[in-house]
Amino acid sequence: MTYRIRDLGDLKARVRAFVEERDWDQFHSPKNLAMALAVESAELVEIFQWLTEAESAVLDGKRRARAEAELADILIYLVRIADRLDVDLLAAASGKLEDNARKYPADRVRGLARKYDEYD
Amino acid sequence: MTYRIRDLGDLKARVRAFVEERDWDQFHSPKNLAMALAVESAELVEIFQWLTEAESAVLDGKRRARAEAELADILIYLVRIADRLDVDLLAAASGKLEDNARKYPADRVRGLARKYDEYD
Amino acid sequence: MTYRIRDLGDLKARVRAFVEERDWDQFHSPKNLAMALAVESAELVEIFQWLTEAESAVLDGKRRARAEAELADILIYLVRIADRLDVDLLAAASGKLEDNARKYPADRVRGLARKYDEYD
Amino acid sequence: MTYRIRDLGDLKARVRAFVEERDWDQFHSPKNLAMALAVESAELVEIFQWLTEAESAVLDGKRRARAEAELADILIYLVRIADRLDVDLLAAASGKLEDNARKYPADRVRGLARKYDEYD
Repeated sequence: MTYRIRDLGDLKARVRAFVEERDWDQFHSPKNLAMALAVESAELVEIFQWLTEAESAVLDGKRRARAEAELADILIYLVRIADRLDVDLLAAASGKLEDNARKYPADRVRGLARKYDEYD
Repeated sequence: MTYRIRDLGDLKARVRAFVEERDWDQFHSPKNLAMALAVESAELVEIFQWLTEAESAVLDGKRRARAEAELADILIYLVRIADRLDVDLLAAASGKLEDNARKYPADRVRGLARKYDEYD
Repeated sequence: MTYRIRDLGDLKARVRAFVEERDWDQFHSPKNLAMALAVESAELVEIFQWLTEAESAVLDGKRRARAEAELADILIYLVRIADRLDVDLLAAASGKLEDNARKYPADRVRGLARKYDEYD
Repeated sequence: MTYRIRDLGDLKARVRAFVEERDWDQFHSPKNLAMALAVESAELVEIFQWLTEAESAVLDGKRRARAEAELADILIYLVRIADRLDVDLLAAASGKLEDNARKYPADRVRGLARKYDEYD
Protein backbone atom coordinates (compact mmCIF):
# COMPACT_ATOMS: atom_id res chain seq x y z
CA MET A 1 0.00 0.00 0.00
CA THR A 2 1.41 3.31 -1.06
CA TYR A 3 1.67 6.08 1.46
CA ARG A 4 1.39 9.35 -0.36
CA ILE A 5 3.65 12.11 0.93
CA ARG A 6 1.60 15.26 1.51
CA ASP A 7 4.13 18.08 1.65
CA LEU A 8 7.79 18.94 2.20
CA GLY A 9 7.51 18.62 5.98
CA ASP A 10 6.09 15.12 5.58
CA LEU A 11 8.91 14.25 3.13
CA LYS A 12 11.51 15.53 5.59
CA ALA A 13 10.12 13.25 8.30
CA ARG A 14 9.99 10.22 6.00
CA VAL A 15 13.58 10.73 4.83
CA ARG A 16 14.75 11.10 8.45
CA ALA A 17 13.04 7.83 9.37
CA PHE A 18 14.56 6.06 6.34
CA VAL A 19 18.05 7.25 7.29
CA GLU A 20 17.69 6.43 10.99
CA GLU A 21 16.42 2.87 10.37
CA ARG A 22 19.64 2.26 8.44
CA ASP A 23 22.00 4.11 10.75
CA TRP A 24 23.14 6.16 7.76
CA ASP A 25 23.23 9.54 9.43
CA GLN A 26 26.96 9.04 10.02
CA PHE A 27 27.49 9.39 6.24
CA HIS A 28 25.22 12.43 5.93
CA SER A 29 27.56 15.32 6.57
CA PRO A 30 26.41 18.33 4.51
CA LYS A 31 29.62 17.89 2.49
CA ASN A 32 28.64 14.34 1.49
CA LEU A 33 25.00 15.26 0.88
CA ALA A 34 26.04 18.10 -1.44
CA MET A 35 28.13 15.60 -3.42
CA ALA A 36 25.22 13.14 -3.61
CA LEU A 37 22.84 15.86 -4.81
CA ALA A 38 25.31 16.93 -7.50
CA VAL A 39 25.64 13.31 -8.66
CA GLU A 40 21.85 13.00 -9.04
CA SER A 41 21.62 16.30 -10.92
CA ALA A 42 24.27 15.02 -13.35
CA GLU A 43 22.24 11.82 -13.86
CA LEU A 44 19.39 14.10 -14.94
CA VAL A 45 21.71 15.99 -17.32
CA GLU A 46 22.84 12.66 -18.80
CA ILE A 47 19.31 11.94 -20.08
CA PHE A 48 19.50 15.09 -22.23
CA GLN A 49 23.16 15.30 -23.25
CA TRP A 50 22.76 14.07 -26.84
CA LEU A 51 19.17 15.27 -27.34
CA THR A 52 18.36 18.56 -29.00
CA GLU A 53 16.39 21.11 -26.98
CA ALA A 54 13.29 20.28 -29.05
CA GLU A 55 13.70 16.54 -28.39
CA SER A 56 14.13 17.23 -24.68
CA ALA A 57 10.62 18.71 -24.59
CA VAL A 58 8.94 15.56 -25.98
CA LEU A 59 10.51 12.69 -24.07
CA ASP A 60 9.46 9.11 -24.79
CA GLY A 61 8.04 7.06 -21.93
CA LYS A 62 11.35 5.48 -20.97
CA ARG A 63 13.26 8.76 -20.75
CA ARG A 64 10.43 10.47 -18.94
CA ALA A 65 10.46 7.72 -16.31
CA ARG A 66 14.24 8.14 -15.89
CA ALA A 67 13.83 11.89 -15.53
CA GLU A 68 11.08 11.42 -12.94
CA ALA A 69 13.34 9.10 -10.91
CA GLU A 70 16.21 11.59 -10.97
CA LEU A 71 13.95 14.51 -10.01
CA ALA A 72 12.77 12.41 -7.06
CA ASP A 73 16.36 11.67 -6.00
CA ILE A 74 17.27 15.35 -6.23
CA LEU A 75 14.27 16.36 -4.10
CA ILE A 76 15.06 13.71 -1.48
CA TYR A 77 18.68 14.86 -1.10
CA LEU A 78 17.62 18.51 -1.20
CA VAL A 79 15.19 18.00 1.67
CA ARG A 80 17.79 15.98 3.58
CA ILE A 81 20.53 18.59 3.29
CA ALA A 82 18.08 21.41 4.13
CA ASP A 83 17.17 19.41 7.24
CA ARG A 84 20.86 19.03 8.22
CA LEU A 85 21.56 22.72 7.65
CA ASP A 86 18.28 23.81 9.26
CA VAL A 87 17.14 25.67 6.14
CA ASP A 88 13.46 26.34 5.43
CA LEU A 89 13.33 25.59 1.69
CA LEU A 90 10.10 27.43 0.84
CA ALA A 91 11.14 30.53 2.80
CA ALA A 92 14.54 30.48 1.08
CA ALA A 93 12.88 30.13 -2.34
CA SER A 94 10.49 33.01 -1.54
CA GLY A 95 13.42 35.25 -0.69
CA LYS A 96 15.39 34.18 -3.77
CA LEU A 97 12.51 34.89 -6.14
CA GLU A 98 12.19 38.37 -4.67
CA ASP A 99 15.95 38.97 -5.07
CA ASN A 100 15.78 37.72 -8.66
CA ALA A 101 12.82 40.02 -9.42
CA ARG A 102 14.97 42.96 -8.28
CA LYS A 103 18.07 41.82 -10.21
CA TYR A 104 16.08 41.07 -13.35
CA PRO A 105 13.29 43.67 -13.66
CA ALA A 106 10.88 42.42 -16.31
CA ASP A 107 10.96 45.60 -18.41
CA ARG A 108 14.75 45.44 -18.76
CA VAL A 109 15.25 41.75 -19.39
CA ARG A 110 12.20 40.59 -21.26
CA GLY A 111 13.25 38.06 -23.92
CA LEU A 112 16.96 38.21 -23.06
CA ALA A 113 18.86 35.50 -21.21
CA ARG A 114 22.04 37.28 -20.18
CA LYS A 115 23.29 37.34 -16.59
CA TYR A 116 22.19 40.44 -14.70
CA ASP A 117 25.44 42.34 -14.96
CA GLU A 118 25.63 41.88 -18.72
CA TYR A 119 22.67 44.16 -19.42
CA ASP A 120 23.24 47.76 -20.55
CA MET B 1 6.31 43.15 1.92
CA THR B 2 7.25 39.53 1.67
CA TYR B 3 4.82 37.05 0.24
CA ARG B 4 5.48 33.74 1.85
CA ILE B 5 5.20 30.73 -0.46
CA ARG B 6 2.97 28.10 1.12
CA ASP B 7 3.76 24.87 -0.71
CA LEU B 8 5.26 23.38 -3.87
CA GLY B 9 2.13 24.12 -5.92
CA ASP B 10 2.32 27.76 -4.90
CA LEU B 11 6.04 27.84 -5.76
CA LYS B 12 5.33 26.33 -9.18
CA ALA B 13 2.81 29.09 -9.92
CA ARG B 14 5.16 31.84 -8.72
CA VAL B 15 8.04 30.54 -10.85
CA ARG B 16 5.77 30.31 -13.90
CA ALA B 17 4.66 33.92 -13.40
CA PHE B 18 8.29 35.07 -12.98
CA VAL B 19 9.30 33.33 -16.22
CA GLU B 20 6.30 34.57 -18.21
CA GLU B 21 6.75 38.22 -17.17
CA ARG B 22 10.24 38.02 -18.65
CA ASP B 23 9.40 35.96 -21.72
CA TRP B 24 12.06 33.47 -20.65
CA ASP B 25 10.13 30.31 -21.40
CA GLN B 26 11.89 30.16 -24.77
CA PHE B 27 15.13 29.35 -22.90
CA HIS B 28 13.52 26.77 -20.63
CA SER B 29 13.79 23.56 -22.58
CA PRO B 30 14.19 20.65 -20.16
CA LYS B 31 17.71 20.27 -21.56
CA ASN B 32 18.64 23.82 -20.52
CA LEU B 33 16.87 23.57 -17.17
CA ALA B 34 18.78 20.37 -16.34
CA MET B 35 22.03 22.23 -17.06
CA ALA B 36 20.98 25.16 -14.87
CA LEU B 37 20.06 22.84 -11.99
CA ALA B 38 23.41 21.06 -12.26
CA VAL B 39 25.22 24.42 -12.18
CA GLU B 40 23.42 25.42 -8.97
CA SER B 41 24.15 22.06 -7.33
CA ALA B 42 27.84 22.57 -8.12
CA GLU B 43 27.69 26.03 -6.51
CA LEU B 44 26.48 24.23 -3.39
CA VAL B 45 29.36 21.71 -3.64
CA GLU B 46 31.82 24.61 -3.97
CA ILE B 47 30.97 25.84 -0.47
CA PHE B 48 32.18 22.53 0.96
CA GLN B 49 35.03 21.53 -1.33
CA TRP B 50 37.91 22.46 1.01
CA LEU B 51 36.02 21.92 4.29
CA THR B 52 36.25 18.70 6.26
CA GLU B 53 33.02 16.78 6.86
CA ALA B 54 33.06 17.99 10.48
CA GLU B 55 33.49 21.63 9.41
CA SER B 56 30.64 21.22 6.92
CA ALA B 57 28.27 20.47 9.81
CA VAL B 58 29.02 23.74 11.67
CA LEU B 59 28.96 26.42 9.01
CA ASP B 60 29.61 30.05 9.94
CA GLY B 61 26.91 32.60 9.13
CA LYS B 62 28.35 33.61 5.79
CA ARG B 63 28.64 30.06 4.45
CA ARG B 64 25.24 29.11 5.80
CA ALA B 65 23.70 32.04 3.93
CA ARG B 66 25.45 30.96 0.72
CA ALA B 67 24.19 27.40 1.20
CA GLU B 68 20.66 28.64 1.79
CA ALA B 69 20.78 30.67 -1.44
CA GLU B 70 21.99 27.68 -3.46
CA LEU B 71 19.37 25.36 -1.93
CA ALA B 72 16.74 27.92 -2.96
CA ASP B 73 18.10 28.06 -6.52
CA ILE B 74 18.09 24.27 -6.76
CA LEU B 75 14.49 24.06 -5.54
CA ILE B 76 13.36 26.75 -7.99
CA TYR B 77 14.91 24.97 -10.99
CA LEU B 78 13.68 21.59 -9.74
CA VAL B 79 10.10 22.85 -9.55
CA ARG B 80 10.45 24.49 -12.97
CA ILE B 81 11.75 21.40 -14.73
CA ALA B 82 9.13 19.18 -13.00
CA ASP B 83 6.52 21.62 -14.31
CA ARG B 84 7.93 21.39 -17.87
CA LEU B 85 8.07 17.58 -17.73
CA ASP B 86 4.70 17.30 -15.97
CA VAL B 87 6.18 15.41 -13.02
CA ASP B 88 4.50 15.38 -9.59
CA LEU B 89 7.55 15.80 -7.34
CA LEU B 90 6.03 14.53 -4.08
CA ALA B 91 4.46 11.49 -5.76
CA ALA B 92 7.80 10.72 -7.46
CA ALA B 93 9.65 11.05 -4.15
CA SER B 94 7.10 8.77 -2.42
CA GLY B 95 7.66 6.10 -5.06
CA LYS B 96 11.43 6.47 -4.89
CA LEU B 97 11.55 6.09 -1.11
CA GLU B 98 9.54 2.89 -1.40
CA ASP B 99 11.88 1.56 -4.10
CA ASN B 100 14.88 2.47 -1.95
CA ALA B 101 13.35 0.71 1.08
CA ARG B 102 13.14 -2.45 -1.04
CA LYS B 103 16.66 -2.12 -2.46
CA TYR B 104 18.16 -1.31 0.93
CA PRO B 105 16.33 -3.36 3.58
CA ALA B 106 17.30 -1.94 6.95
CA ASP B 107 18.40 -5.26 8.45
CA ARG B 108 20.90 -5.84 5.62
CA VAL B 109 22.38 -2.39 5.23
CA ARG B 110 22.35 -0.87 8.69
CA GLY B 111 25.55 1.15 9.18
CA LEU B 112 26.96 0.39 5.73
CA ALA B 113 27.08 2.86 2.82
CA ARG B 114 27.70 0.60 -0.17
CA LYS B 115 25.55 0.63 -3.29
CA TYR B 116 22.84 -2.03 -3.24
CA ASP B 117 24.56 -4.50 -5.53
CA GLU B 118 27.74 -4.44 -3.46
CA TYR B 119 26.17 -6.19 -0.48
CA ASP B 120 26.72 -9.92 0.09
CA MET C 1 58.12 35.98 -18.77
CA THR C 2 55.84 33.11 -19.62
CA TYR C 3 57.05 29.58 -19.13
CA ARG C 4 55.29 27.37 -21.58
CA ILE C 5 54.26 23.96 -20.24
CA ARG C 6 55.42 21.27 -22.66
CA ASP C 7 53.35 18.18 -21.80
CA LEU C 8 51.24 16.52 -19.13
CA GLY C 9 54.29 15.41 -17.14
CA ASP C 10 55.53 18.99 -17.04
CA LEU C 11 52.07 20.21 -15.98
CA LYS C 12 51.96 17.62 -13.19
CA ALA C 13 55.30 18.89 -11.84
CA ARG C 14 54.23 22.54 -12.06
CA VAL C 15 50.96 21.87 -10.23
CA ARG C 16 52.81 19.92 -7.52
CA ALA C 17 55.20 22.82 -7.02
CA PHE C 18 52.31 25.32 -6.88
CA VAL C 19 50.53 23.25 -4.22
CA GLU C 20 53.65 22.62 -2.15
CA GLU C 21 54.67 26.30 -2.06
CA ARG C 22 51.28 27.02 -0.51
CA ASP C 23 51.11 24.00 1.80
CA TRP C 24 47.81 23.13 0.20
CA ASP C 25 48.33 19.40 -0.11
CA GLN C 26 46.45 18.94 3.18
CA PHE C 27 43.25 19.99 1.35
CA HIS C 28 43.92 17.78 -1.66
CA SER C 29 42.35 14.49 -0.70
CA PRO C 30 41.01 12.78 -3.84
CA LYS C 31 37.53 13.38 -2.41
CA ASN C 32 38.07 17.14 -2.32
CA LEU C 33 39.80 17.22 -5.69
CA ALA C 34 36.89 15.36 -7.29
CA MET C 35 34.54 17.99 -5.88
CA ALA C 36 36.74 20.83 -7.19
CA LEU C 37 36.89 19.27 -10.66
CA ALA C 38 33.10 18.89 -10.72
CA VAL C 39 32.70 22.54 -9.72
CA GLU C 40 34.92 23.67 -12.61
CA SER C 41 33.08 21.46 -15.11
CA ALA C 42 29.81 23.08 -13.99
CA GLU C 43 31.33 26.53 -14.54
CA LEU C 44 31.97 25.41 -18.12
CA VAL C 45 28.34 24.19 -18.43
CA GLU C 46 27.13 27.56 -17.13
CA ILE C 47 28.59 29.35 -20.17
CA PHE C 48 26.30 27.31 -22.43
CA GLN C 49 23.16 26.84 -20.38
CA TRP C 50 20.99 29.42 -22.18
CA LEU C 51 22.72 29.17 -25.56
CA THR C 52 21.40 26.99 -28.37
CA GLU C 53 23.70 24.27 -29.68
CA ALA C 54 24.35 26.38 -32.79
CA GLU C 55 25.27 29.45 -30.68
CA SER C 56 27.60 27.30 -28.59
CA ALA C 57 29.67 26.57 -31.70
CA VAL C 58 30.32 30.25 -32.47
CA LEU C 59 31.24 31.85 -29.16
CA ASP C 60 32.03 35.53 -28.96
CA GLY C 61 35.46 36.55 -27.63
CA LYS C 62 34.29 37.01 -24.05
CA ARG C 63 32.61 33.62 -23.79
CA ARG C 64 35.47 31.88 -25.55
CA ALA C 65 37.90 33.34 -23.00
CA ARG C 66 35.70 32.12 -20.16
CA ALA C 67 35.54 28.66 -21.71
CA GLU C 68 39.31 28.58 -22.12
CA ALA C 69 39.77 29.48 -18.45
CA GLU C 70 37.41 26.72 -17.32
CA LEU C 71 39.06 24.13 -19.59
CA ALA C 72 42.39 25.11 -18.02
CA ASP C 73 40.98 24.71 -14.49
CA ILE C 74 39.54 21.30 -15.37
CA LEU C 75 42.86 20.12 -16.80
CA ILE C 76 44.78 21.36 -13.75
CA TYR C 77 42.50 19.50 -11.30
CA LEU C 78 42.44 16.43 -13.56
CA VAL C 79 46.23 16.24 -13.58
CA ARG C 80 46.32 16.83 -9.82
CA ILE C 81 43.87 14.09 -8.96
CA ALA C 82 45.55 11.66 -11.39
CA ASP C 83 48.82 12.43 -9.59
CA ARG C 84 47.22 11.74 -6.18
CA LEU C 85 45.66 8.48 -7.40
CA ASP C 86 48.78 7.47 -9.36
CA VAL C 87 46.87 7.21 -12.64
CA ASP C 88 48.60 7.57 -16.01
CA LEU C 89 46.06 9.72 -17.87
CA LEU C 90 47.17 8.98 -21.45
CA ALA C 91 47.39 5.23 -20.80
CA ALA C 92 43.94 5.31 -19.21
CA ALA C 93 42.53 7.25 -22.18
CA SER C 94 44.13 4.78 -24.64
CA GLY C 95 42.46 1.89 -22.86
CA LYS C 96 39.11 3.67 -22.68
CA LEU C 97 39.08 4.49 -26.40
CA GLU C 98 39.73 0.83 -27.16
CA ASP C 99 36.91 -0.26 -24.83
CA ASN C 100 34.60 2.28 -26.46
CA ALA C 101 35.54 1.06 -29.94
CA ARG C 102 34.42 -2.43 -28.86
CA LYS C 103 31.21 -1.23 -27.20
CA TYR C 104 30.31 1.03 -30.12
CA PRO C 105 31.39 -0.70 -33.34
CA ALA C 106 31.23 1.90 -36.11
CA ASP C 107 29.05 -0.20 -38.44
CA ARG C 108 26.35 -0.59 -35.76
CA VAL C 109 26.26 2.91 -34.31
CA ARG C 110 27.05 5.23 -37.17
CA GLY C 111 24.89 8.36 -36.87
CA LEU C 112 23.09 7.20 -33.70
CA ALA C 113 23.72 8.60 -30.24
CA ARG C 114 22.14 6.02 -27.97
CA LYS C 115 23.94 4.35 -25.08
CA TYR C 116 25.49 1.03 -26.07
CA ASP C 117 22.86 -1.21 -24.53
CA GLU C 118 20.04 0.65 -26.31
CA TYR C 119 21.02 -0.61 -29.78
CA ASP C 120 19.19 -3.51 -31.41
CA MET D 1 47.34 -4.94 -29.80
CA THR D 2 47.38 -1.75 -27.81
CA TYR D 3 48.37 1.51 -29.42
CA ARG D 4 49.75 3.75 -26.77
CA ILE D 5 48.77 7.39 -27.07
CA ARG D 6 51.88 9.57 -26.82
CA ASP D 7 50.61 13.05 -25.99
CA LEU D 8 47.59 15.34 -26.05
CA GLY D 9 47.94 16.04 -29.77
CA ASP D 10 47.90 12.31 -30.49
CA LEU D 11 44.84 11.90 -28.24
CA LYS D 12 43.05 14.70 -30.06
CA ALA D 13 43.64 12.96 -33.41
CA ARG D 14 42.49 9.59 -32.07
CA VAL D 15 39.30 11.05 -30.61
CA ARG D 16 38.56 12.86 -33.88
CA ALA D 17 38.97 9.60 -35.82
CA PHE D 18 36.73 7.73 -33.35
CA VAL D 19 34.00 10.38 -33.71
CA GLU D 20 34.25 10.59 -37.50
CA GLU D 21 34.05 6.78 -38.02
CA ARG D 22 30.73 6.90 -36.17
CA ASP D 23 29.39 10.10 -37.70
CA TRP D 24 28.94 11.44 -34.20
CA ASP D 25 30.19 14.95 -34.80
CA GLN D 26 26.59 16.08 -35.27
CA PHE D 27 26.03 15.49 -31.54
CA HIS D 28 29.23 17.23 -30.50
CA SER D 29 28.20 20.83 -30.13
CA PRO D 30 30.26 22.45 -27.37
CA LYS D 31 27.01 22.68 -25.38
CA ASN D 32 26.53 18.91 -25.52
CA LEU D 33 30.19 18.17 -24.87
CA ALA D 34 30.17 20.39 -21.77
CA MET D 35 27.19 18.41 -20.49
CA ALA D 36 28.94 15.10 -21.17
CA LEU D 37 32.10 16.24 -19.38
CA ALA D 38 30.05 17.34 -16.36
CA VAL D 39 28.32 13.95 -16.28
CA GLU D 40 31.68 12.13 -16.22
CA SER D 41 33.04 14.40 -13.49
CA ALA D 42 29.98 13.57 -11.39
CA GLU D 43 30.61 9.85 -11.93
CA LEU D 44 34.04 10.48 -10.42
CA VAL D 45 32.46 12.32 -7.46
CA GLU D 46 30.07 9.39 -6.95
CA ILE D 47 32.99 7.07 -6.12
CA PHE D 48 33.89 9.27 -3.15
CA GLN D 49 30.53 10.55 -1.91
CA TRP D 50 30.23 8.27 1.14
CA LEU D 51 33.97 7.83 1.76
CA THR D 52 35.88 9.94 4.26
CA GLU D 53 38.76 12.03 2.94
CA ALA D 54 41.19 9.54 4.48
CA GLU D 55 39.46 6.59 2.81
CA SER D 56 39.52 8.44 -0.50
CA ALA D 57 43.33 8.45 -0.37
CA VAL D 58 43.63 4.64 -0.07
CA LEU D 59 41.20 3.25 -2.63
CA ASP D 60 40.79 -0.51 -3.03
CA GLY D 61 41.48 -2.00 -6.45
CA LYS D 62 37.88 -1.89 -7.62
CA ARG D 63 37.38 1.78 -6.77
CA ARG D 64 40.75 2.76 -8.18
CA ALA D 65 39.81 1.10 -11.46
CA ARG D 66 36.51 3.01 -11.52
CA ALA D 67 38.34 6.28 -10.81
CA GLU D 68 40.83 5.57 -13.59
CA ALA D 69 37.99 4.96 -16.05
CA GLU D 70 36.28 8.23 -15.11
CA LEU D 71 39.52 10.22 -15.32
CA ALA D 72 39.98 8.78 -18.82
CA ASP D 73 36.44 9.78 -19.83
CA ILE D 74 36.96 13.30 -18.50
CA LEU D 75 40.24 13.67 -20.41
CA ILE D 76 38.66 12.40 -23.64
CA TYR D 77 35.77 14.88 -23.46
CA LEU D 78 38.13 17.66 -22.37
CA VAL D 79 40.35 17.12 -25.39
CA ARG D 80 37.29 16.89 -27.65
CA ILE D 81 35.72 20.13 -26.47
CA ALA D 82 39.10 21.94 -26.60
CA ASP D 83 39.37 20.72 -30.20
CA ARG D 84 35.88 22.06 -31.03
CA LEU D 85 36.57 25.42 -29.37
CA ASP D 86 40.12 25.60 -30.78
CA VAL D 87 41.69 25.91 -27.34
CA ASP D 88 45.30 24.90 -26.67
CA LEU D 89 44.93 23.11 -23.34
CA LEU D 90 48.55 23.27 -22.17
CA ALA D 91 48.88 26.95 -23.10
CA ALA D 92 45.62 27.70 -21.27
CA ALA D 93 46.82 25.78 -18.20
CA SER D 94 50.17 27.64 -18.25
CA GLY D 95 48.34 30.96 -18.26
CA LYS D 96 45.94 29.88 -15.52
CA LEU D 97 48.75 28.72 -13.20
CA GLU D 98 50.42 32.10 -13.63
CA ASP D 99 47.17 33.94 -12.86
CA ASN D 100 46.65 31.74 -9.82
CA ALA D 101 50.20 32.41 -8.61
CA ARG D 102 49.38 36.14 -8.70
CA LYS D 103 45.98 35.75 -7.02
CA TYR D 104 47.35 33.45 -4.34
CA PRO D 105 50.89 34.60 -3.44
CA ALA D 106 52.48 31.83 -1.41
CA ASP D 107 53.50 34.03 1.51
CA ARG D 108 49.90 35.22 2.02
CA VAL D 109 48.02 31.97 1.57
CA ARG D 110 50.31 29.26 2.88
CA GLY D 111 48.23 26.66 4.74
CA LEU D 112 44.89 28.43 4.17
CA ALA D 113 42.21 27.29 1.72
CA ARG D 114 40.00 30.34 1.39
CA LYS D 115 39.08 31.91 -1.93
CA TYR D 116 41.38 34.75 -2.91
CA ASP D 117 39.07 37.58 -1.93
CA GLU D 118 38.52 36.15 1.54
CA TYR D 119 42.08 36.86 2.70
CA ASP D 120 42.85 39.91 4.83
